[in-house]
Amino acid sequence: MNPRNAFYAQSGGVTAVINASACGVIETARKHRRRIGRVYAGRNGIIGALLEDLIDTGKESPTAIRALRHTPAGAFGSCRYKLKGVDQNRAEYERLIEVFQAHDIGYFFYNGGGDSADTCLKISQLGGQLGYPIIAVHVPKTVDNDLPITDCCPGFGSVAKYIAVSTREATLDVASMAKTSTKVFVLEVMGRHAGWIAAAGGLASDKDLELPIVILFPEVPFDPARFLGRVEECVRKYGYCSVVVSEGVKGADGKFLSDQGLRDAFGHAQLGGVAPVIAALIKQQLKLKYHWAVADYLQRAARHVASKTDAEQAYAVGRAAVELALQGRNAVMPAIVRVSNRPYRWKIGVAELERVANHEKMMPRDFITDDGFGITPKCRAYLAPLIRGEDYPPYQDGLPKYVRLKNAPVKKRLTSGFVLK
Amino acid sequence: MNPRNAFYAQSGGVTAVINASACGVIETARKHRRRIGRVYAGRNGIIGALLEDLIDTGKESPTAIRALRHTPAGAFGSCRYKLKGVDQNRAEYERLIEVFQAHDIGYFFYNGGGDSADTCLKISQLGGQLGYPIIAVHVPKTVDNDLPITDCCPGFGSVAKYIAVSTREATLDVASMAKTSTKVFVLEVMGRHAGWIAAAGGLASDKDLELPIVILFPEVPFDPARFLGRVEECVRKYGYCSVVVSEGVKGADGKFLSDQGLRDAFGHAQLGGVAPVIAALIKQQLKLKYHWAVADYLQRAARHVASKTDAEQAYAVGRAAVELALQGRNAVMPAIVRVSNRPYRWKIGVAELERVANHEKMMPRDFITDDGFGITPKCRAYLAPLIRGEDYPPYQDGLPKYVRLKNAPVKKRLTSGFVLK
Repeated sequence: MNPRNAFYAQSGGVTAVINASACGVIETARKHRRRIGRVYAGRNGIIGALLEDLIDTGKESPTAIRALRHTPAGAFGSCRYKLKGVDQNRAEYERLIEVFQAHDIGYFFYNGGGDSADTCLKISQLGGQLGYPIIAVHVPKTVDNDLPITDCCPGFGSVAKYIAVSTREATLDVASMAKTSTKVFVLEVMGRHAGWIAAAGGLASDKDLELPIVILFPEVPFDPARFLGRVEECVRKYGYCSVVVSEGVKGADGKFLSDQGLRDAFGHAQLGGVAPVIAALIKQQLKLKYHWAVADYLQRAARHVASKTDAEQAYAVGRAAVELALQGRNAVMPAIVRVSNRPYRWKIGVAELERVANHEKMMPRDFITDDGFGITPKCRAYLAPLIRGEDYPPYQDGLPKYVRLKNAPVKKRLTSGFVLK
Repeated sequence: MNPRNAFYAQSGGVTAVINASACGVIETARKHRRRIGRVYAGRNGIIGALLEDLIDTGKESPTAIRALRHTPAGAFGSCRYKLKGVDQNRAEYERLIEVFQAHDIGYFFYNGGGDSADTCLKISQLGGQLGYPIIAVHVPKTVDNDLPITDCCPGFGSVAKYIAVSTREATLDVASMAKTSTKVFVLEVMGRHAGWIAAAGGLASDKDLELPIVILFPEVPFDPARFLGRVEECVRKYGYCSVVVSEGVKGADGKFLSDQGLRDAFGHAQLGGVAPVIAALIKQQLKLKYHWAVADYLQRAARHVASKTDAEQAYAVGRAAVELALQGRNAVMPAIVRVSNRPYRWKIGVAELERVANHEKMMPRDFITDDGFGITPKCRAYLAPLIRGEDYPPYQDGLPKYVRLKNAPVKKRLTSGFVLK
């Protein structure tokens, strides 16, 4: 059997370790040259396939591919582009087949979250529906940690570590300042639907270093009076506190607090962020001095403080995806299976994409304390191993030495173009 | 001569390495027990002296004191409290003398920025004016890097490293997303008066990894049209860009952009941050998708990514302060002297406090490019060595193992209290 080529693409919001998965895919494929010919990457995700804008990863040295393991963000470019159903936009699927056929692509690896799992599932069904043989394997990635079946999602552990470390550091800072100045520090973190990332703020405090941290989860409707009561209580007891607030926190009316209608001096709507809203409330109601930060991209790009567990798992799912494809497994996703908590042990299992696509995994209610402001021991036991271990990138002149690939284009074979919808 | 005791206090905004200076002071004093008896720290800075609320650092183990070297923020508490002139509030100085006398304090070490240097100078003059023999040495610290004479200020190098690393990481992130989503990333950094920290964002891009970064300095009046033109140009050329904006950027009217009068839905003034203002401008005028972050305390507390150069200098000024005091040098500050750039070599010199107090060192104009949006090679040559070297704290279970001291109080010897103004 002649080797067939592979297509790999990155999708949705990028992470500190998505390139580690790319590294796992490419290095593993390179070990099976008799089965997998070339690995082509989509430039800017699936758009690269639709536009026949492919990158020949074969032009990259082993050293460059290895450096992906410690380089954050998406080395081939990502995209936010959701394929419609085959019924709704058959042209897109026909185009994909056309491009795959032109480049003899027999393996499709899609590295993303829930939406991408759905795309990958649709591609996996192409074989039957359009008569083109292809094996599609999803490579899990999302800082939101909301994919089902897998115990955790590569990308999440490193964000969680960043938030835990940063919350610890900033809380020590506000503790130092509290006597005469700032008493409350507010940190806004990602997580529009689920509070996994906010929960990681709770790890900043532990038995060796107790710190007063109030968490606002998107799962718990915001109650200003109860929240302010808790902050006041912390400040009375400790002199200070930190608030870790998820961007997805909603009021009792179900609206995002961040969308509460800020206007600038000219009356223009101002895209808020929820941290300043919380900070203003603290100032107005409690008359306490505050500082606030919005971590935004810094949290998900922070490869410099990545979790070793996370980086290893990200690599492992990339490698496993190729191994599954070589076993002929279609429409699956390598999943992380937690074998034990103490010591933490994990292995790679297999999830059927049918069971992954379009299901969000929310925080279990028993991960949040009864008062709604903290994490339970059960949540801590779940989160703790995911941030464990350091995996520093190499540095040069004081800066992490991240790789930029050549990203050489593959010569086009089709004369037809394609217009993105 | 009987040994006399020493007083050490932390003042103003804390940093990732101010405790390294404390470590330098205490470890060095412990080596000279025949000259320096006990080292008392002020709980919450100079307030601890006024209230006779002293901490006996002698109760801390050598291991705990050593751990200060890698622990961020102010281990003894800091304060924002500026002593008035001796003429204006003689009672404060008399109280300090009373407390120092009661505890036989002959050495005063004050760890802070410009205001604190002024306080330290005043204390140094007490000997003559109030007939109490004391040697006062200032230990430089400020993330703002605005102290004169010293080549740089401990605390700055680590913030600069954090901003350079974070800007590099987030810019790789936005580069990945730009094809279909976010094209501009805005990062707000500290520096109300001088653009030293914003300048560090420029280090994110270098010859090995060129990245489009637009810097907004407080030294350059904000010109919306020119700024938007530059962003548009970057996005046209690269597809994306990052903006590093100093919190201190002002409009042509001399007002802070962050004070442009945001109101919430109820008409309450909203303390802004400048990043959302810049982001809104980009959205309204260029119709580009953006993300924004405000680093706030995260930047100055980020011991996890401290600069080794900075940590070493912070320790060295603490040690030198004690050595200067033992040499009988009053009213001085150890200063960092740059001996050469390549290789970077530095040594400790001595600055007279008269020449330090109440002088701010601004960015030289030739550190900013003519267009006002970038750093010159001269600025890069200055900044580069300051972020060099990594100095990781020890980790346990995925989190930095920062020390919390016992901070045991020294028994009060005075019956009188003191009311802070």
